[in-house]
This record gives sequence, structure tokens and C-alpha cells, in this order.
Amino acid sequence: MIGLGGNNGTTLCATILANRHNIAWGTKNGIQQPNYIGSMLRASTVRIGTDDSGKDVHVPVCDVLPMVHPNDLALGGWDISGLSMDKSMERAKVLDYDLQRQVKPHMALLPPPLPSVYYPDFIAANQEARADNLIPGEDKQAHLDHIRADIRKFKQDNDLDRVVVFWTANTERYSDIIPGINDTADALLRSIKESHAEVSPSTLFAVASILEGEPFVNGGPQNTFVPGCIELAERHKAFIGGDDLKSGQTKLKSVFAEFLVNAGIKPLSIASYNHLGNNDGYNLSSERQFKSKEISKSSVVDDMVDANRLLYKGPEIGPKGAALDKGEHPDHIVVIKYVPAVGDSKRAIDEYYSEIFCGGRSTINIFNECEDSLLATPLILDLAILAELLTRVQYRKGTEGGEFQPLYSVLSLLSYMLKAPLVKPGTEVVNALGRQRNALESFLKACVGLETNTDLLLDTRIW
Amino acid sequence: MIGLGGNNGTTLCATILANRHNIAWGTKNGIQQPNYIGSMLRASTVRIGTDDSGKDVHVPVCDVLPMVHPNDLALGGWDISGLSMDKSMERAKVLDYDLQRQVKPHMALLPPPLPSVYYPDFIAANQEARADNLIPGEDKQAHLDHIRADIRKFKQDNDLDRVVVFWTANTERYSDIIPGINDTADALLRSIKESHAEVSPSTLFAVASILEGEPFVNGGPQNTFVPGCIELAERHKAFIGGDDLKSGQTKLKSVFAEFLVNAGIKPLSIASYNHLGNNDGYNLSSERQFKSKEISKSSVVDDMVDANRLLYKGPEIGPKGAALDKGEHPDHIVVIKYVPAVGDSKRAIDEYYSEIFCGGRSTINIFNECEDSLLATPLILDLAILAELLTRVQYRKGTEGGEFQPLYSVLSLLSYMLKAPLVKPGTEVVNALGRQRNALESFLKACVGLETNTDLLLDTRIW
Amino acid sequence: MIGLGGNNGTTLCATILANRHNIAWGTKNGIQQPNYIGSMLRASTVRIGTDDSGKDVHVPVCDVLPMVHPNDLALGGWDISGLSMDKSMERAKVLDYDLQRQVKPHMALLPPPLPSVYYPDFIAANQEARADNLIPGEDKQAHLDHIRADIRKFKQDNDLDRVVVFWTANTERYSDIIPGINDTADALLRSIKESHAEVSPSTLFAVASILEGEPFVNGGPQNTFVPGCIELAERHKAFIGGDDLKSGQTKLKSVFAEFLVNAGIKPLSIASYNHLGNNDGYNLSSERQFKSKEISKSSVVDDMVDANRLLYKGPEIGPKGAALDKGEHPDHIVVIKYVPAVGDSKRAIDEYYSEIFCGGRSTINIFNECEDSLLATPLILDLAILAELLTRVQYRKGTEGGEFQPLYSVLSLLSYMLKAPLVKPGTEVVNALGRQRNALESFLKACVGLETNTDLLLDTRIW
Amino acid sequence: MIGLGGNNGTTLCATILANRHNIAWGTKNGIQQPNYIGSMLRASTVRIGTDDSGKDVHVPVCDVLPMVHPNDLALGGWDISGLSMDKSMERAKVLDYDLQRQVKPHMALLPPPLPSVYYPDFIAANQEARADNLIPGEDKQAHLDHIRADIRKFKQDNDLDRVVVFWTANTERYSDIIPGINDTADALLRSIKESHAEVSPSTLFAVASILEGEPFVNGGPQNTFVPGCIELAERHKAFIGGDDLKSGQTKLKSVFAEFLVNAGIKPLSIASYNHLGNNDGYNLSSERQFKSKEISKSSVVDDMVDANRLLYKGPEIGPKGAALDKGEHPDHIVVIKYVPAVGDSKRAIDEYYSEIFCGGRSTINIFNECEDSLLATPLILDLAILAELLTRVQYRKGTEGGEFQPLYSVLSLLSYMLKAPLVKPGTEVVNALGRQRNALESFLKACVGLETNTDLLLDTRIW
Ligand SMILES: NC(=O)C1=CN([C@@H]2O[C@H](COP(=O)(O)OP(=O)(O)OC[C@H]3O[C@@H](n4cnc5c(N)ncnc54)[C@H](O)[C@@H]3O)[C@@H](O)[C@H]2O)C=CC1
Ligand SMILES: NC(=O)C1=CN([C@@H]2O[C@H](COP(=O)(O)OP(=O)(O)OC[C@H]3O[C@@H](n4cnc5c(N)ncnc54)[C@H](O)[C@@H]3O)[C@@H](O)[C@H]2O)C=CC1
Ligand SMILES: NC(=O)C1=CN([C@@H]2O[C@H](COP(=O)(O)OP(=O)(O)OC[C@H]3O[C@@H](n4cnc5c(N)ncnc54)[C@H](O)[C@@H]3O)[C@@H](O)[C@H]2O)C=CC1
Ligand SMILES: NC(=O)C1=CN([C@@H]2O[C@H](COP(=O)(O)OP(=O)(O)OC[C@H]3O[C@@H](n4cnc5c(N)ncnc54)[C@H](O)[C@@H]3O)[C@@H](O)[C@H]2O)C=CC1
Repeated sequence: MIGLGGNNGTTLCATILANRHNIAWGTKNGIQQPNYIGSMLRASTVRIGTDDSGKDVHVPVCDVLPMVHPNDLALGGWDISGLSMDKSMERAKVLDYDLQRQVKPHMALLPPPLPSVYYPDFIAANQEARADNLIPGEDKQAHLDHIRADIRKFKQDNDLDRVVVFWTANTERYSDIIPGINDTADALLRSIKESHAEVSPSTLFAVASILEGEPFVNGGPQNTFVPGCIELAERHKAFIGGDDLKSGQTKLKSVFAEFLVNAGIKPLSIASYNHLGNNDGYNLSSERQFKSKEISKSSVVDDMVDANRLLYKGPEIGPKGAALDKGEHPDHIVVIKYVPAVGDSKRAIDEYYSEIFCGGRSTINIFNECEDSLLATPLILDLAILAELLTRVQYRKGTEGGEFQPLYSVLSLLSYMLKAPLVKPGTEVVNALGRQRNALESFLKACVGLETNTDLLLDTRIW
Repeated sequence: MIGLGGNNGTTLCATILANRHNIAWGTKNGIQQPNYIGSMLRASTVRIGTDDSGKDVHVPVCDVLPMVHPNDLALGGWDISGLSMDKSMERAKVLDYDLQRQVKPHMALLPPPLPSVYYPDFIAANQEARADNLIPGEDKQAHLDHIRADIRKFKQDNDLDRVVVFWTANTERYSDIIPGINDTADALLRSIKESHAEVSPSTLFAVASILEGEPFVNGGPQNTFVPGCIELAERHKAFIGGDDLKSGQTKLKSVFAEFLVNAGIKPLSIASYNHLGNNDGYNLSSERQFKSKEISKSSVVDDMVDANRLLYKGPEIGPKGAALDKGEHPDHIVVIKYVPAVGDSKRAIDEYYSEIFCGGRSTINIFNECEDSLLATPLILDLAILAELLTRVQYRKGTEGGEFQPLYSVLSLLSYMLKAPLVKPGTEVVNALGRQRNALESFLKACVGLETNTDLLLDTRIW
Repeated sequence: MIGLGGNNGTTLCATILANRHNIAWGTKNGIQQPNYIGSMLRASTVRIGTDDSGKDVHVPVCDVLPMVHPNDLALGGWDISGLSMDKSMERAKVLDYDLQRQVKPHMALLPPPLPSVYYPDFIAANQEARADNLIPGEDKQAHLDHIRADIRKFKQDNDLDRVVVFWTANTERYSDIIPGINDTADALLRSIKESHAEVSPSTLFAVASILEGEPFVNGGPQNTFVPGCIELAERHKAFIGGDDLKSGQTKLKSVFAEFLVNAGIKPLSIASYNHLGNNDGYNLSSERQFKSKEISKSSVVDDMVDANRLLYKGPEIGPKGAALDKGEHPDHIVVIKYVPAVGDSKRAIDEYYSEIFCGGRSTINIFNECEDSLLATPLILDLAILAELLTRVQYRKGTEGGEFQPLYSVLSLLSYMLKAPLVKPGTEVVNALGRQRNALESFLKACVGLETNTDLLLDTRIW
Repeated sequence: MIGLGGNNGTTLCATILANRHNIAWGTKNGIQQPNYIGSMLRASTVRIGTDDSGKDVHVPVCDVLPMVHPNDLALGGWDISGLSMDKSMERAKVLDYDLQRQVKPHMALLPPPLPSVYYPDFIAANQEARADNLIPGEDKQAHLDHIRADIRKFKQDNDLDRVVVFWTANTERYSDIIPGINDTADALLRSIKESHAEVSPSTLFAVASILEGEPFVNGGPQNTFVPGCIELAERHKAFIGGDDLKSGQTKLKSVFAEFLVNAGIKPLSIASYNHLGNNDGYNLSSERQFKSKEISKSSVVDDMVDANRLLYKGPEIGPKGAALDKGEHPDHIVVIKYVPAVGDSKRAIDEYYSEIFCGGRSTINIFNECEDSLLATPLILDLAILAELLTRVQYRKGTEGGEFQPLYSVLSLLSYMLKAPLVKPGTEVVNALGRQRNALESFLKACVGLETNTDLLLDTRIW
């Protein structure tokens, strides 16, 4: 993990340790057991058919194919803050007091975060105070080599088959896409060599992973995967996935919008407000970083709108067949505010205002309160475990002959956990959560020769 | 329609007339056109594949197969209130003032509701004042014959191929299931002949439709379809569907619960409050009628809970393999209150309180305001049109030989629009809205030889 | 306290101990200090004038007159559950885990609750399992004597000037007011002697306090103060106050309704929903106990409505000048539901739907989540301390001559903390929170010779 | 009115006309009568004492002193948009369709808005399209003279005693306070003569009114009343009042914060979100104009916080006795977004997150939907009528001798209707709504010799 000492990083480590060592803790409601609730792999099921009596049979998603158990992951990573892992966990203020108390000695045994690269232009100025744990120098090529060595060493020290590199560090500003600088693989590599200003830390980590042949997942919203980076991954048949953990509001929105539009109801406006008081919120209170988040949060309804030209007029088409505008769209605003008092307990407020039958209106107002990092952490686990799994899947075209190949570099099957899913350049993004899950289920089932759910249940419809 | 003069009945008629005669009306925001927004058939689309450039192609659901257009429906029905249709529309207070003003003369041309049967024990006492338009006498067999004659006459007068009989009259109390009275088809017919007290008006209408060979749909929550009624439908290969229009809160709940449980999140409690001030609410302020509604609203999360035994402990199993209890379930309460001031503008408030990762909690509070009848009316249209369509579908088992048969009597494919879907006895109910829609889509597509969406989109995942 | 082992009782004891022993505790957000936040006496201020520079001067309410400090209260009481105080605190699940952990040994040192009277007809049947600590026998006179002896002993053992007896036990059903049984002081005393079924435990405790000359406050909603009980208090010039702690939703409602009506806005309906999962909620899930709560919650807007006959039509007046109906009123519903999952963390949801200018509508929807007992406990403190203070206030009529007298028995000045304030029979109830506070402030200030706030601030309005 | 053709301006005119001509209109709920609901003067009451039987007696606020009836107001004003009044009303989309339809011919008879001054730097660039009705030239002195002449002519033409000039035009950006330019009366007059860029339209109108001796009220949030403007008013003993109509969210906040802090509860954060889709919202989507609004909305809780140093630590005091910081404050954010779809139907969402007893937390989330202009219009009426009334009040110091004087220029008694009340320089602002109303009531009652409510109700507290 990059950002190991942050809220997500420390929560992930502490909860894995609690699960591994079976630490139960006291709360005012009684004893709480550690668990993996919130992980779709470990806490949800998939329907694989019916039994003799016609009853549905469901199995845990993680049992469809052999997957790594989160307890078995080796933990480590980088952070620009060198604070020890137990202290970092306290700083995060995410976990219950008595869990913190008990897991603290275990956390203290973890190695502190490795030094990382800090290019102040990319994250909020207010983060500077944390940056006390840096790889020295300004030479980006040297930084790249340093990171690659870190990856190799971690793999070797822990005797691992596979390292998944995961960006859960602060949201960076967007990188400008500059021809000759980051638009091709070669340009990007050259830019690193020349320590070009527009190479972000996250892109550097992505490049390091690609060159090491290890999968890289971007849990932040920024455009880590500049075109040159994607090309590099393709060239090396390395795996990449992103962007931005889809933990709460956006996930719900991708459900809600799908539901409404599918029901023939026309959302006219979606107003989404958030406030939170953790370090992520602090970083996002800076305009350019917020921008990255705003972008990743904004496109989520687009595919549903585009899919329903009965409700939304399509773009006007010019004489040459090109769209002259974006077509009709619901008004959509996204606001994120930093409110220290609420800490990690994020509040997300959404209003859906829709047109219904014959001029009627429906107003749906949603208030959502949730420990942000407790939603995000299981997603990180799911992404890491799925990414590893997908590196092991091979296919061949046609029924026989031909060699088996690995999957395509961009792991769009991870979309279910991501706000702004990265897909193969030139193909369409699917944001509808139902379709994303359907894709993942169908894929896993196909790997073991099971069919997709049609829900036809024909025997219940015929004589 | 039974309940023609009610909010749903008059709204349906007036909006069809507005669409048919292309009546636009003034609102404070400008001119409003009539439409069928909110109808999944006429306002939503289905993905049928990709075009040459790899782009998704969507078509209106109503274009997948030939279906009746709502504008072409012939309108008529019964009501215990004999008020003329234009006056009934005014009483309903659902439609915009200027739409009412313009459509009024058209409504006045519709024949007033036919006299109906009124068995006071079945609906709330507060409805008595409306009951001024009754088929005379107390003889239920005579009532049945009267209704059958009404159906035949309507068919003939309007020169129709098919009549869909739709219960959108007041919610009745539950009928007791009494051996020898309504548990078999024969018993039920005998009970009608003997004017047994436990035969409800809605059951009487269902029986009439079955005997006339016309499909019957129950838009109310009561158990119209007593076992004897289902057996009768099977015997006559007639079509029935129900129960209870799934317009707002419950629909959303079937989306929400599916979403949460699928994400590995564990709802601990769902608290659902409603208040409304129309005649439906007035009727439901009576305890026994509320009970019917409570039942139909309560079971909606059961199948999702049962499908995930990672989150919810299953029932304890006794020595003989039978379940000793219902297993772990979220707390679930449903409240409906009559608040005259809000009129037809129903408010639905839901709190979802869930357990997330490692003892965390998520609170989601939803406030929903909507003209109730404007949500319900397009569902009635969809149900009627789909029911008609399904009477025309035939299948045969095996690839060749054998005769074509009509579908099974209980039209469970209508589930998407129904709160408590009636299914083939002995088979499992699917409440998850996503699965219900998937079933419907898959079925319609299968009729024209198209495949179900797997969302695999393989070409975007491989090289 | 009666109900010492309940949520309010144990929370009160534990927090006083934490304050007294200065126990700070760990939470995930850091170290938490004990405090009296939420007590209007100890955490709010009153404006007593302006300083030389014209700036407002505010002092803590508790500094206006000499009052008991909560830390100095002696703690004790009765409960039908004999569980020790430390175990009771754990059962209550109200306080933070680490506070419970530290305060536990102190709680263990408190004497366990004294045995109490349990008349099963008065509280919910579901409470029976708790009732293991009872004063033996069925003789109500003996019970009365027993309780009086308990009060005397507690006073003596702790060497106290004053004992305040406080009902914070379960909500009882309403007592029927029966002529000759509880409508006069004599009748009531006789009924006790005869162990009449309609004498409730809370009335018995009130009578005991009155006879002992100690103030009695009723924190529950039931009609403890039957007419005979009030007369008895008057006869003995003893002090009584009630009913029902105004902690959350109702308090807010008395603010909101006052605000709206004062602004010339007309509430058309108020829909109030609650759910909670503690033992109080469990008890209230029983119909008759809920009824008591419903009554105390329902009247809260009446005085504001009656005060504004511009918005609400008054009652029709009959030929003899008597009101023929209640006059126009907003629709007002109150629902309380038991939802175990939420524990003591009560959710209160309110919708205010109002008529504004020229037919406009305003919808205000409020969602409130709060640890119920943490709201209620400071109110108990304020009530007890104020009640004690008021026993010490004396007045005489006219400027000189005449004897000083104690205040009237019914302490209506406590209204600010009470949902259904008990007032002198025949006088009007004030529910508007602003006016209640104004009364209390004015009174306290008058005692030390300060004037009421007019807010005229004349020097800022003139030259 | 300045801004006559806007939402507030046209709504005011149309509703007065509807009231004056007694126009009732059709809505889907039936016939609606015109009224002045939402006006505290005409729709709320004040308690003036008790009758013989001890019952409270309330009278309409407007009956305490002789006041102008809104129906008797003469209507006119300026707008940079020259659209006729009937067309402007349609553009506003505020009033019910059938009211618009009927009142339209009356509106058409009103003179169109007078040309006004438009200094593009002060309002949002997106307003430029409207600016088609301008006083020619760039000479601000000439503009001033033009406006003064307009005022005189209006007074004469309508044969009036008093003209109240009311700013309900678009929110302007803040003016910079520049020494020698607008910090003194003389400087300001000179700056106008020199057409200095920093003189805003609203200040120009204020100066015109002051010089004409007519009261001026600022319904917008901008700092129209630069120091020189206030000095000019004082010099001419002319009356001014402002700023910013307190219609919805802020009004509620001044109630809520007062309530919480008075109850000893400590708000930790207040997050306020708004979205609206009318022209006001469009103008506020521009950063500098939003800033004005943000300022006027932000200070509303300050006085309550400052009044309670038990909950909030005071500022650190430096060696010389001066405050080194602002002291402890709740986090407070205000967001306004432009969402065209919702039109004039503004949504205001507020979260109050508070600390309660012993580390507990209370979360209150409020969702408010309301036609914005229907809230604002009655406030404009109240302000205009009160301002006129206050010009007629005279006082003298001491009990006899001395001359009667008019009130001080800055009419702080108008605070109840204003978000950021302008008060005498150097004195403290009172935002608490309860105190503001108390002041107004006390003042009106004092004028007729009635006492302020102490709510002591002594006869109910003593024997
Ligand atoms: N918590 C959540 O629910 C979600 C979080 N995310 C994203 O995940 C990321 C992390 O979130 P949190 O853990 O809450 O934030 P955090 O601010 O607590 O942690 C981020 C950590 O990254 C470190 N860091 C910053 N720049 C670095 C660099 N160049 N190299 C190494 N370390 C660096 C910081 O020192 C900090 O410890 C953010 O981008 C956030 O937007 C996305 C969706 C949901
Ligand atoms: N409006 C909605 O959104 C939804 C409505 N429903 C159900 O649909 C039904 C109708 O709802 P509304 O139209 O709003 O109610 P409504 O009360 O306005 O109309 C019902 C009509 O049925 C008539 N009626 C009662 N008993 C009858 C009988 N035996 N024969 C003939 N007519 C009879 C009544 O006179 C009335 O005109 C109710 O059962 C309701 O629960 C279900 C879901 C949603
Ligand atoms: N917690 C709150 O916010 C508010 C509470 N109240 C009222 O305060 C009362 C107490 O509330 P909680 O402490 O939450 O309830 P609780 O159920 O936790 O405690 C009540 C206690 O009273 C005991 N009890 C019952 N009958 C008794 C009897 N006859 N003699 C002695 N003890 C008896 C029970 O064993 C139990 O320990 C209830 O009436 C409730 O409605 C009122 C307003 C607010
Ligand atoms: N509607 C509401 O609830 C509240 C409104 N306000 C304030 O009241 C003001 C008016 O609000 P709306 O009527 O809703 O806005 P609006 O945008 O509908 O109307 C403003 C009118 O002012 C005109 N205008 C702009 N500059 C002018 C100038 N220099 N001279 C003459 N006319 C000019 C515009 O052409 C427009 O017709 C705004 O400042 C708003 O912030 C304040 C509180 C509440």
C-alpha cells in the first residue's frame, strides 16, 4: 500500500491483525468479534442453481474459485509520514477504542512505512506537515528505481508469489496530458528519466509496478493512468485497475440511478453533498484535489442516461454525423466539505428530484452516515484479492488450438468497487452497479463452467 | 377496473384521454405535455447488443415484442361509488388543475362506473358513505353472474379481443382460509353458491374473470387468490397475477436491500413509515385493512436474507431436519398513517441501519415525497399490457413435436410491478428488483431469440 | 429514584460518579472528560445585563442562586430488578465502553436497588422477567408504610436536608379516574388502605413522598397525579412536579411549532415517528403504556394553536357560549416503535407540513439520532436540583406585613424539562419552550431582584 | 422596489392584487383564497394579558398599533429588465397556474419597471442578458438625481405620505471599504459625483432615499450600507434597515442554535446546503455574489456562542487585554448551488451535530423544501410596513420636558426578518430569533403602555 499510515492503510492492517489473531473487543453493546463484513467476496453469496426440491442454492462468492484469504496477506508499504503503525492507527481515529487498545502491540510490531516520494505540487499544501519520511533527492528516475527495489525486497523478504501494489495515499490533482511527455509509454519513461514536473507520485508507483510485473490498483480518483502508463502496461502485459474506491454515496447513486431510469422515471437533478473531517477531507478541501474527486464522482450516471433516449433527448447530430452537444442530462452537482468535528464519520446527503407520470414530481432525500474508512477497507481487500486472482486467469480464443493468454491489462472486472472504472481505451464504461456485479458473477461462474443467472426460472412459469 | 372511480381509476382514465387527445396543460413552470413516463414498458429501454463500433444498442422495452399501446385501451369498470367520472377525478385531487379543467369534458363522456358488490365486512367502515352504486341483493352467485355478464357485455360493446380485469379498489381485509370453504376450487364455487361470508368481493371478481377466460390482476394487497381461486385458474388455464402495486417505498426497498446484502453489508433494522391523506390512506387507517398492507410490505427482504447465510444465521434445524425458527432476520417495521393534510402526496420515510466492517454502523435515512397515484397508474398500464401479452405466448417442451401450450396460470413474470408477487404454489418468491427485471428482460428477449445480458463484454476484457 | 436500575437511573449514578471522581476515559477520538453538558443549569447561561462598554453580560444559570451541585447528591432508590448497580449499568448499554470499565468498581460500591412494588397490570407484561426484587405482600397500605420508612432511612443514613423522590421507572398505563376512589385526597388514602386495584405504584410513591414532606417529580408520562394526589399535596403543602421528561423530539417540537406559528406560518400536519431499542421502548411496545406516552406527546402544540386564531379557526360556539368542538387543529400523529437493533440510540423523525403564503407549502423533514438516556439524565438532575431550590423559596403578598409562604404545591416552573407540564388545576398549560424558559429565567432573576429581559435594548434603538 | 420584475417583486405585486381584488383560484386540491399567511404582522398574534377567567388573551400583531394594510400599498419600482409585469410574473414561475391566469390582466395594467442603473461589475455576468432597461449614461451623479426624481414622482403621482424604498434586486458583490471613498458621508457623496467605480447600485439607491428622507430597506446580503452611507442617514435622520431577508434556513438556524445552546447542548458543527434554480440562484452561482450571501448567512450563530462560555472556550486574551483569536466556535459551512431543475422551490439541508452529556453525540438532519419567494414576499411586506410605522414613532428622554425625537436611523427592530441585522455601529447584533421577536413585541406593546411578557404567571405558581 502507498499511504500505509493513513486511515485506510492503518484500518486495513489493524483489522487484518484482529482477524488473524482473533481479537474480540468490548463496546458498550457487548463483545464484538472481528469479521469481514462489507467484503463482497467474503460476506456475500452468489446463486449457483437450485437443489432437488427447487430451492435456490447460494455459495459465498469467495468459494466459487480459489482465492487468497485476507488473513494470509503480507502487509507493508510506503508513506510520506514516518509515524509508527500503532501511532498512525491512533491518529486515524477510526477503530473502536478497545480494539485499538488490544491491537496496538501487534501494530507496533509491523515495520513502519517505507519512505516515499513527495511532490508537493500534487497534493494539498496542508499535507506538508506530515511529509517527514521521504526518499531523498529530486531525481525521479532514482525514485523509480528505489521503489522497484522496495517491491522486489518486500516480495523476497515475505517469500511471496505476487505483490499487489495499491494506491490509497492522498488524492492528487489531475496530471495534464501533454503530448511528448506522458501520452505514450516511451514519452513517459523519458519524462521520468528527465524528472519532468508532470509525473505524479502515483504514476511513478504505477510504472514501478508495471516494470516489476506486479498488478497495480489505484484507489484514488486522480488520473494516475495517463495514456503512456496504460500503453506501458499493455506492452508489459502487466495488470492495472482503477480509479477511486466506490464506498458509499457514489455506489448508492449507481444503484439508484439505475433503478429509476430502469423504472421509466426521469431524474431531473441529483444534488450530492458530503462532509467529513478526516485527513482525506482535509486534503480535499484544497481546490485542485477536490477537482479530481469531483470528476470521478460526476460521470457515474452518464451511461444510464445514454442508455435511455426515451427519457433524455440525445445530442444534436451535426451534418457530418458527429454529436454537437452532450445531449440532455440531469443537473448533477457534487460538493465535498471539510468539517473537522465529524471526523471519519462521513455524512453524505443526496437529493434525487425526478419527473414521473404526466408532470408529477418525486423527491427523494437521502441522509447517510458512515465511518468512511470502514466502508473503504473491505473494498481494498476485495480489489487486491480479485486483482491477484485475475492475474491467474488465462483464456484462449476458439475451442481448441491456440495458446492460452492472460487477460487484457486493464482489469475492468474490478468496476464494482470503483467509482470511475478504468476500461480498455475506446470501450464504454459501465457504471450501473447491477451490471457490474452481473459481469463479475458471470465471469467467476464462467471460469468454473456455470451459467449466468437469467432469472428465467422457467419451471415456475410453465406447467 | 374494479374501483374505477378511485384515485388510480380516474387518474388512469384521465391520463389516457390526455395522451389520446394530446391535451397539453398549463402549470406554473410552463406547458406540460402528456406522456407515459413511469411506465417501464414505454419509458425504459433494454440492451439488445452492440453495434459495429462496439457501442451498446438499446431499444424501448415496448418494441421488443408487439404490445398494445395504452392509448388504444378501452376504458370501463365498476365502483361502489356511482359518482360520474369527471366528478370522481375532481374528488381524487391527483391531477394538475389545468389538466383536470381540460380533460373534464372528455371524462364526462365516459360511462359512469357500473354497480359493484359491497360486503362491508371487507373494507373499512369509513368507506360506507361512498357505497351508493351496488348490485342489488345478497346472493353471491347472482353477483357472480352479474359480473360475468358485465365482462361479456364490455367485450362485445367495445369489440375487443381481450379484457384484462384489474382490482384497484380498496384494500380488503384478509380472508380466512377455511377448509371446505375456499381451499379448493370446488369448495370455493360452492361457497359462492351458498353466499358464504368469507368470499370477498375481490375473489368474486377473480372467479368471474377466470370463468370468462380473461386475465385478472390484483393491484391490492389482500389475499384475493385463496387456494381455491388459484386451483380454479389452473383448471381453466386462465391467467392471474398479483398482489399489490409496487409503486414507491417497497420498490425502493427491494432495490436497497438487494444492494446492501449483495455488497456484503448486513442490514440490522429497516424502519418504514408512511403517511398519506387520500381515500386509500383513509381505508388503511382501519386496523384489519392495514394488516393486509403490512403483510404484503413485510416479506420483501426475506429472500435476500435467506440468500446470504454468511451475514444471517440460518434457522436452527431440529432433529428431523425441519427448521425450528425463521433464522436471523433484520428488525423490520412498517407503519402507515392517515394524515389528511398531505392528500395524495404520500411521504415514505425509511431508515436502514446496517452493520458494516468490524462493528461499524451505517445509517441511511430516506425521505420520499411523491404523488402516490402518479406512481401507481403507469404500473397498472404495464401490468395490464404485459398480462395481455403473456396470454398470447405459447411454448412447447423439447425442440420438436409436442403441442404448444399457454403459460402457467400464475403470471409471476409480473413481479417487477408487485409488492408481494404471487408465484406458482410451492416455488420461491423473488423480491429482488434487479432479478425481477432480469427475468422479464430475459423472457422478452428469449421470445425473439435474443440472449440474456451476461455483461461479460468479453471483448473489453481480453486482448 | 424509582427505577434506579434502569437506563436513566444507572446513567445518572455512573456519570455523577465519573464527575465526582474525575474519571476521564478513552474513546476512538481521544480522551473524554466527564461533564454536565446538556444540563441547562450547569451548561447554559442567562443574560443579566450589559457591562460599561455596552456588552452583554451572561452568567451560568446555576450561579444566579445558590443551588446544589450534582456531585454532592446522595444516590439511591428502588427497582423491581435487584441486579447490582454495576451489572445494571452494563445491561443498559448506554455509556462508552471505557467509561463503563472504569466506573464499574465505583458502581459496585453503591447499594443495590431497594425492593419495590410491582403491580403487573400497570406496566407491560414483557417486564415481568425483571421483577425479582419486590416488597412482599399485596397490602398497599403496608407498601406505602414501607416506602415511607425507606425515605426516612435514606435521609437519616445520608444525613440529608432534603430528599427528592423521582419516578424514572417504566411508563405505566393511565389510571382510571374513579369517583370515590382517587378523585379526592381522602378517597385516595382510603383506596390505598383497601388495596384498591386502581392505585398505581407511581401514585403510591407520590403519596409516600407527600406524606413525608419531600418533593416528588414524575419523569414518566402516566397520570400519577390523580386528582386525589394533587389535593393531598395541597393539603400538606408538599411539592410535586411532572410529567414526562422532555428530552428530544417533543422539546424540539415545542420550539418548532412556536417558531412557525409565531412567524405566521400555518402547520397543517405534524407526523412524528420514533423508534428505539432499549427497555423503555420494549415497555412502550405494549399498547396501554404507549397510550400514556402518546397522550403526553400529543398536546404539545395545543397552546400555540389556541393562541393564533388568525391561522386556525376557533371552536364553534354553541348557544350557551360553550365550545362545540376543539376548533381547527393541525393533523398530529405520534408513533413509537420498538426496534431492538438501535438500542438506546433513539431515532426521531418529524415532518412538519405547513401552509405558507397564498397556498404555498413548506415541507420540513427532521431526522434526529441521539442516545436517549444521555439526553434524559441531565434533565433529571436539573429537575431534582430545581425542585429542591423551589422548596426553599418563600413569598409574601403585598410589600409588607403578612407571613412568608412556600410556593404552591404544583411546581409548574419545571415545565421547561417536561413534556406534559402539570400545572395548577384550572390554569392553562404553556408548552412553548421559549416561554417556559423565559418564565424560569424571570423567576430566578426576580429572586435576586433582576429584571426580565425585554430585549428592548433601547440605547441601541435611539440616539 | 428595486428589482420589481424579479421573483420577489412580481410575487409581491401579484399577491397584493389577488388580495385586493379578492381573486380565488383553482388548484388540484380545490379553491384557494388569497391571504397574508407568513406575515408575522398579519398572521401572528401577541399575548397581551389574561381575561377575567385567567385565560390568555391574544391579539393580531397588526392590531397592537395602527399600521398600513398591505392591500393599500401603492406598487412600483425599477428593474434593469424592462419586461412588462405580467410577462415578468410568468418568467418567475412562482405562483400557481390558475392564479397567474387570473391575475395576469391586472398585472398588465401595472406600469412596467422604471429603467435602473446597471454596473456589471456588481452582479453576476450571467445577468447581462436581462439588462435592457437602463438609465442612460455612466454619470453616477446623474443616476442619483434620476432616481431621486423617480421617488418624488412616484410619491406625487400616487399621492402618498411615505415611500419605502426596498432593495430586492440581485445580490451584489461586496463593496470594498476604501478610506476617502466610502468611509464617510462626505467621501461617499464625492465619490458619487466622481462616478467612482466602488459605488454600487444599491448604495446609490440608498443614498437617493436618504436624501429624499424616505426609509430604505436592503433585502439583499451585500454591504450596501458602507460606513459613509450610515453616516449620511444619521446626518439626515433618515431611516435605513437591512440586510438580507431571513426567510428559511437561516431563520430556522437562529431558532435552532438558540434552542440548543440554551438547553446546554453544544453544537460542534453546522453544515448548511442549499440548492435552487431560480434567477437568484443563477446570480449566486457566481463566486463574488455567493460570497456576499455566505457572509450574511455565516454570522448567525455567533452571538449565541459568545453568550455561552460554559460550552465554548472564550478567545485567548493577550497581555494587553485584547482577544488573540475568535475563541472556540462550531464548524460552520454554507453552500449554495444552482440547480435549474428545482426552480423556485428551494431545498435547504442542514445538519446539526452536537455534543451532549458525557461525550454523547446528537445528529439532527433537516430537509426543507419551500417556494423561496413565497417565504420572502410576506417578509418584504412586514419590513415595509414596520419601517413606515417606525418613522412615526417618537420618544423623549426622561419623564417630562425635552422634545420628542424620532428613532435612531438604523432600524434594528427589523432584525426578526433579516439574516444579518444592521445595528447601531459599535453595538452588538442579536441573531437569536426568540430575542428578536421579544424585542419587537416589547417595543410595540411599550408604545401602547403594555408590559413585556415575563411569563411569570405568578398566580399559577403561588397559593
Ligand atoms: N476512505 C474512504 O472511504 C475512501 C477513500 N478514498 C481515497 O483513498 C485515499 C486514502 O484515503 P484515506 O486513507 O482516508 O486518507 P488519509 O489521508 O488518511 O491517508 C493517506 C495517506 O497517504 C499518505 N501519502 C500522501 N502522499 C503520499 C505519497 N506520495 N506517498 C506515500 N504516502 C503518501 C499520507 O501521509 C497519508 O498517511 C484518498 O485518495 C481517498 O480519496 C476513496 C474512496 C473512499
Ligand atoms: N395509489 C397507489 O400508489 C397504490 C395503490 N395501491 C392499492 O390500489 C388500491 C386503490 O388505490 P386508490 O385508487 O388510491 O384508492 P381509492 O380509495 O382512491 O379508490 C378505490 C376505489 O374503489 C372503490 N371500491 C371499494 N370497494 C369496491 C368494490 N367492492 N367494488 C368496486 N369498487 C370498490 C371505492 O369506491 C374507490 O372509488 C388500494 O387497494 C391500494 O392499496 C397499491 C399500491 C400503490
Ligand atoms: N430515556 C429517556 O430519554 C426518557 C425517558 N423517559 C421516561 O423515563 C422512564 C425511564 O426510562 P428508562 O430509564 O430509559 O427505562 P428503563 O426501562 O431502562 O428503566 C426503568 C426501570 O424501572 C424499573 N421499574 C419498573 N417498574 C418499577 C417499579 N414499580 N418500582 C421500581 N422500579 C420499577 C425497571 O426494572 C427498570 O429498571 C420511562 O418512563 C420513560 O418513558 C421519559 C422521557 C425521556
Ligand atoms: N427569494 C428569497 O427567498 C430571498 C431573496 N433574497 C434576496 O432578494 C433578492 C431578490 O431575489 P429574487 O427576487 O428571488 O431574485 P430575482 O433574480 O428573481 O430578481 C431580481 C431582479 O432584480 C433585477 N435587478 C438586478 N440588478 C438591478 C439593478 N441594479 N436595478 C434594478 N433591478 C435590478 C433583475 O433584473 C431581477 O429582475 C436577492 O438579492 C436575493 O438574494 C434574500 C432572501 C430570501
